[in-house]
Amino acid sequence: MAKEIKTIGVLTSGGDAPGMNAAIRAIVRKSLSNGIKVKGIKKGFNGLLNEEIVDMDARSVSDTIQRGGTVLYTARCTEFRTLEGQQKGAEICRKHGIDGLVVIGGDGSFAGAQKLSALGINTIGVPGTIDLDIACTDYTIGFDTAVNTAMEAIDKVRDTSTSHERCSIIEVMGRNAGYIALWCGIANGAEDILLPEKYNHDEQQLINNIINNRKKGKKHHIVINAEGIGHSEAMARRIEAATGIETRATILGHMQRGGSPTCRDRVYASIMGAYAADLLAQGKSNRVVGYKNGAYVDFDIDEALAMQKGINDYEFTVSRLLAM
Amino acid sequence: MAKEIKTIGVLTSGGDAPGMNAAIRAIVRKSLSNGIKVKGIKKGFNGLLNEEIVDMDARSVSDTIQRGGTVLYTARCTEFRTLEGQQKGAEICRKHGIDGLVVIGGDGSFAGAQKLSALGINTIGVPGTIDLDIACTDYTIGFDTAVNTAMEAIDKVRDTSTSHERCSIIEVMGRNAGYIALWCGIANGAEDILLPEKYNHDEQQLINNIINNRKKGKKHHIVINAEGIGHSEAMARRIEAATGIETRATILGHMQRGGSPTCRDRVYASIMGAYAADLLAQGKSNRVVGYKNGAYVDFDIDEALAMQKGINDYEFTVSRLLAM
Amino acid sequence: MAKEIKTIGVLTSGGDAPGMNAAIRAIVRKSLSNGIKVKGIKKGFNGLLNEEIVDMDARSVSDTIQRGGTVLYTARCTEFRTLEGQQKGAEICRKHGIDGLVVIGGDGSFAGAQKLSALGINTIGVPGTIDLDIACTDYTIGFDTAVNTAMEAIDKVRDTSTSHERCSIIEVMGRNAGYIALWCGIANGAEDILLPEKYNHDEQQLINNIINNRKKGKKHHIVINAEGIGHSEAMARRIEAATGIETRATILGHMQRGGSPTCRDRVYASIMGAYAADLLAQGKSNRVVGYKNGAYVDFDIDEALAMQKGINDYEFTVSRLLAM
Amino acid sequence: MAKEIKTIGVLTSGGDAPGMNAAIRAIVRKSLSNGIKVKGIKKGFNGLLNEEIVDMDARSVSDTIQRGGTVLYTARCTEFRTLEGQQKGAEICRKHGIDGLVVIGGDGSFAGAQKLSALGINTIGVPGTIDLDIACTDYTIGFDTAVNTAMEAIDKVRDTSTSHERCSIIEVMGRNAGYIALWCGIANGAEDILLPEKYNHDEQQLINNIINNRKKGKKHHIVINAEGIGHSEAMARRIEAATGIETRATILGHMQRGGSPTCRDRVYASIMGAYAADLLAQGKSNRVVGYKNGAYVDFDIDEALAMQKGINDYEFTVSRLLAM
Repeated sequence: MAKEIKTIGVLTSGGDAPGMNAAIRAIVRKSLSNGIKVKGIKKGFNGLLNEEIVDMDARSVSDTIQRGGTVLYTARCTEFRTLEGQQKGAEICRKHGIDGLVVIGGDGSFAGAQKLSALGINTIGVPGTIDLDIACTDYTIGFDTAVNTAMEAIDKVRDTSTSHERCSIIEVMGRNAGYIALWCGIANGAEDILLPEKYNHDEQQLINNIINNRKKGKKHHIVINAEGIGHSEAMARRIEAATGIETRATILGHMQRGGSPTCRDRVYASIMGAYAADLLAQGKSNRVVGYKNGAYVDFDIDEALAMQKGINDYEFTVSRLLAM
Repeated sequence: MAKEIKTIGVLTSGGDAPGMNAAIRAIVRKSLSNGIKVKGIKKGFNGLLNEEIVDMDARSVSDTIQRGGTVLYTARCTEFRTLEGQQKGAEICRKHGIDGLVVIGGDGSFAGAQKLSALGINTIGVPGTIDLDIACTDYTIGFDTAVNTAMEAIDKVRDTSTSHERCSIIEVMGRNAGYIALWCGIANGAEDILLPEKYNHDEQQLINNIINNRKKGKKHHIVINAEGIGHSEAMARRIEAATGIETRATILGHMQRGGSPTCRDRVYASIMGAYAADLLAQGKSNRVVGYKNGAYVDFDIDEALAMQKGINDYEFTVSRLLAM
Repeated sequence: MAKEIKTIGVLTSGGDAPGMNAAIRAIVRKSLSNGIKVKGIKKGFNGLLNEEIVDMDARSVSDTIQRGGTVLYTARCTEFRTLEGQQKGAEICRKHGIDGLVVIGGDGSFAGAQKLSALGINTIGVPGTIDLDIACTDYTIGFDTAVNTAMEAIDKVRDTSTSHERCSIIEVMGRNAGYIALWCGIANGAEDILLPEKYNHDEQQLINNIINNRKKGKKHHIVINAEGIGHSEAMARRIEAATGIETRATILGHMQRGGSPTCRDRVYASIMGAYAADLLAQGKSNRVVGYKNGAYVDFDIDEALAMQKGINDYEFTVSRLLAM
Repeated sequence: MAKEIKTIGVLTSGGDAPGMNAAIRAIVRKSLSNGIKVKGIKKGFNGLLNEEIVDMDARSVSDTIQRGGTVLYTARCTEFRTLEGQQKGAEICRKHGIDGLVVIGGDGSFAGAQKLSALGINTIGVPGTIDLDIACTDYTIGFDTAVNTAMEAIDKVRDTSTSHERCSIIEVMGRNAGYIALWCGIANGAEDILLPEKYNHDEQQLINNIINNRKKGKKHHIVINAEGIGHSEAMARRIEAATGIETRATILGHMQRGGSPTCRDRVYASIMGAYAADLLAQGKSNRVVGYKNGAYVDFDIDEALAMQKGINDYEFTVSRLLAM
């Protein structure tokens, strides 16, 4: 029989992402309406180990759905990767009467949730990362806002790149995954898109493409470069040297993590948060919420962590053809 | 054996939607890369009947992906609802060597495409409407931009509504479908959401809710009202009279149709446009492109027009609980 | 000798305006650095009469500079227009040890400040209104944000207006003053601008202009109508009837009052707030802060209220010529 | 007697700035309404020397007021710094019947205009640069858009900086002038602002300030660093090493040059463009348009280039106090 849950905790872990506050709000309010109390744990697993734990009511999350960042703060926590840290975390949960825990974050954070679950604390993961690099879900909290932020910045770079007939290399986030780069590449009509999953490091081919485009009369050449490939400044210098075309690099950086969330991020994060609250209310544990094939679903964390996903080939091919 | 397609036309029909230009661009460039010529037909079926037809090449759609509206213009056309009009349209297609046609629009526009297909012109529909009210697809071009535009406007109304401790009724688009209202309702944390699909017209319940919220200490009360319910001004006057709380109506109107498309609208419209171009290249006809269960697909237009969809009950219930 | 000021109050009054929080923050922090205590008075003069008064320190205004609305709330107060109300207000100030008061608002609010000053409470006015209708200053808090909000909305309406080759009447705020309408008229390239200060109510001339523009091949016709003229819906119906061109009205409404303030509104409101705090620290009273001829200045409230300003003729003439 | 002007040219020179298109549009249309023909010269003085000259009519500038960049393109031109280049330029003007020329750009571009004027071509300068570093004017085209772009990006960085309790160094444009840095510093409530005009390069003081703020409980520490000081990445590494607080650098870069212009940039650029067209129509030469002390004015270019301006001390002092 499922354990009865009276009080849950919620924390955000790893890199922050716009929409995390919408998820926190939904977890708090849906749990309250399920008759369950809620405690906020600050600064991720770090704050759990330091017992930075506060009571939350419906008003604690007023006026937060439209805010970037996370009102619970976040941090990375090496101590929680050890068995000792995990046992201490479970102990602190019990001490504070926390029967269940929602962890909003990425795969690394879910691994922590998995350990806590094995130690008797019911845990549910909610996918929060701007990188979209969680295999069990087609949507992660923050990706939609991040791609729009990057896209709007690139639209601006394109204006000035055109006025000066320049080549521009724009580096977007995504250390292991090229989703932000691919989406911006399509949305900004970029002439080249360099993804960790696809780039063959043949810079001569890139240079030839730039030269050919100039011959065709194109007034600018936009290269979207994923963080996972990096080295945009040096690449710009080499391209300028090889082509004779003025080339500048822009690294968009941390602005991609912030900002008021888009409508999609607010809506999906809200539904996912409510869904996670309901899973805990039903006594479920070691699950991660996902949005897959057009529906909200949940997976066993072990299975979720074992899944793989990659760049869609049709979309990548189309992205190359449309930049003609 | 499928008819060989040498030249296609593309038109936008019905209400315009942000992202239509991204779809046009993709149709043009993907067709060209498929070895097919493209003609642009201006002002929808109206322009077809008036032979407002221009040749398009890769440069015709340069610098358009980020633009709102439709570079091909759009119109409603009553003549095309008659058999005579449809036959004339098919005749004009043949006269201009147009073997296939992509129609970007809503159900009404697809009905026109269906007729042309029966008259021997291969046609493909691409769903373009801010209202999301096309049953065969989870995504329609323009919805994502429209909900973000509406949401950002409502965020602003909420600022001043809070400062003055007012009740605000905000009317968003959606004559037959409440999707924009539901999404904004969740994303803006609205206290009440009135949808054509769900509203029971019990205004006393709404009034009681407003009074109760004020007692709970809420500084504002936001009601999102779908266009399909309407009458926001009169509703505001009745609510102010019944509650004694200052109440103002805002009708967001046509600004929801315009603006630079979001990243999602640019990306999905691009892929859908390319997909439609490929369907025509394969000799397909009487199909409509959709995004369903997480994948790009196509349906027979007859089947697509017979489908039904509605508001998700879990999402609607959650939206009500989160506004506690 | 000037009275020594130990504690001041701050309130926002009349319609709220983006940037008011930046001014409050500056008043609080500059006063603290001047060695003066600060109390926040909620809901304008209304809250003063109800003694809704709270202590403020440097942290009370943390994370507010980027927020729309006013953290002190605002209200209109008829009681304060009476001598009795004013005397009660002065009494409450003395009771709470408030020696000086900054009033952020428009001319009506300054009149209240003037009365309090005569009753022995040092008062300073700071111009806060989106309408720019304060004669002693070239800048008022909120105008810059409001015109950008309106302009961006009109850009969107223009997209769809062009796609459908429509005429659009867009009503912007400004009951007595046409500044928002004039600025948007220029910035949006509107074909007609109707200002309270200039409009001769010759609708036939407007209709002729619309017809002539259509003949010249213009794809849309944008009319910016100031709230002070109003009746946009009826005007749209008359124009459509007279021209045969589809014509729609949009009333932008309260969204123009909200939103995160622009850079200018944050910067000028901050400097004006600091300047007001310094005037009180110097023992000044019955002054209003302005930005005039490129410099921050202050005027006697009596003189300020007697000043006049109007629409610049060169700018209005140019606005008409540029829409050719 | 002033030379009669029948045809003028217009060009943009140096770095592009949002609002340049509004100025071009105004110059074209106001000149046409003055009975003067207009030719567009592409790519600045470079394009003049290459005779990249096109006729412009009222429709040439349709639908451009809201666009970033410059439709005439821009470039830097070393050849035009030589007397030979200038003489060739004047010759080409005469060959194309160009009696007068409007040059939109910065001080370097005005120096070119000055030389042409001495060679018999009537020239007028219009200040266009995002840096605000033109002494004769309180406003330059593009500054208002650039500070809003930078401010909005910094708001986003601040969200994530707060969530992670980080120190962030954000580098904004301004090689010789700190205006963008100062405005953003105030508008974003930055804890430190490093301006070329004011920074004493005492990094230990900066480090102490960061440590003290953390002790006071501040959740983030934002340092705005002007491009003219630069080296943000290295500074971040030194600060992290010295304080133990995670510190990241973001260099906003070229996105600050692009984007749809703000309302102010569209309005002021339009009036300045019209004003420049009128000066040429009156037979004036060797003048530069400015906005000074609240009014549009014009100066002799020689005088304008000899003027000096600097950071306002009161504003700088206030900016430091408000970050308490």
